[in-house]
Amino acid sequence: MKPRALGHQLMVEFYDCDKDILDNLEAIEGAMLDAALVSGATVVEKVFHRFSPWGVSGVVVIAESHLAIHTWPEYGYAAVDLFTCGDTVDPLKGFDLLEERLGSQNMSVVEMKRGILSQANGVHKPMMETAEEIALPSCSLPNNVFSGKSIEPESMQVVA
Amino acid sequence: MKPRALGHQLMVEFYDCDKDILDNLEAIEGAMLDAALVSGATVVEKVFHRFSPWGVSGVVVIAESHLAIHTWPEYGYAAVDLFTCGDTVDPLKGFDLLEERLGSQNMSVVEMKRGILSQANGVHKPMMETAEEIALPSCSLPNNVFSGKSIEPESMQVVA
Repeated sequence: MKPRALGHQLMVEFYDCDKDILDNLEAIEGAMLDAALVSGATVVEKVFHRFSPWGVSGVVVIAESHLAIHTWPEYGYAAVDLFTCGDTVDPLKGFDLLEERLGSQNMSVVEMKRGILSQANGVHKPMMETAEEIALPSCSLPNNVFSGKSIEPESMQVVA
Repeated sequence: MKPRALGHQLMVEFYDCDKDILDNLEAIEGAMLDAALVSGATVVEKVFHRFSPWGVSGVVVIAESHLAIHTWPEYGYAAVDLFTCGDTVDPLKGFDLLEERLGSQNMSVVEMKRGILSQANGVHKPMMETAEEIALPSCSLPNNVFSGKSIEPESMQVVA
């Protein structure tokens, strides 16, 4: 049985990016908001900040968790997290958009499932009606889904 | 030679937490801000949001990157990211504070180094005066540190 999780996180290293873009607050904010939208996420709030002498940090809180970016223009590098939950959001679409907007020529992605409720030590064994129910778009499940089968733990996977 | 990175991220799964705390916007916001402060971070901006019917999401943007939390009170579970850069911030102090405030009885932590500028495929080989210089509190290095030895890639480590 495939293990399921409450959340799903992509940790992306964007290397060899356009350094001017990485240092441009408006460009970064626009790219992150567009990444949220193209992924199918619902934007709740956002904060973006440009640092001196360079670099931009920003977070978009979405109904399905968050997207975050930190840029190091001097290295052409940006660290991006795409943390989502639910089945209605496709963070890979946001990833593709950011790759293009940042002009990244090299990248790596680590995928991590968050909130695996069944653990090897047996202390977390919430029961679920079906495994699929844990991935509702709302990211919150009614307590009455705790009635059936357990799920298995899952470790991180490198997906690209 | 120990590899060094631009950033350092702790991805924490807090299980078996106090469910009332997890659903309390003020308590979560206060805990996250205190976690930033006890870690030695400089708070830049913050956004927190309580969802219906339950759950809180929030991010504290710090000068040294960000702290993020998403709570699932119905499972007693919170996903926390502590993303920092520089040598002046100790995210483990924030971790300890959050463990206590959330009342977590079980947890796991994955540590990931972000922005390893030397990669196995050889495309990222920035040169540095010394490895230590990459971890300045400002998180930004002048370009003139690109003058010496290369650093090696590092993969993720489970630290607890």
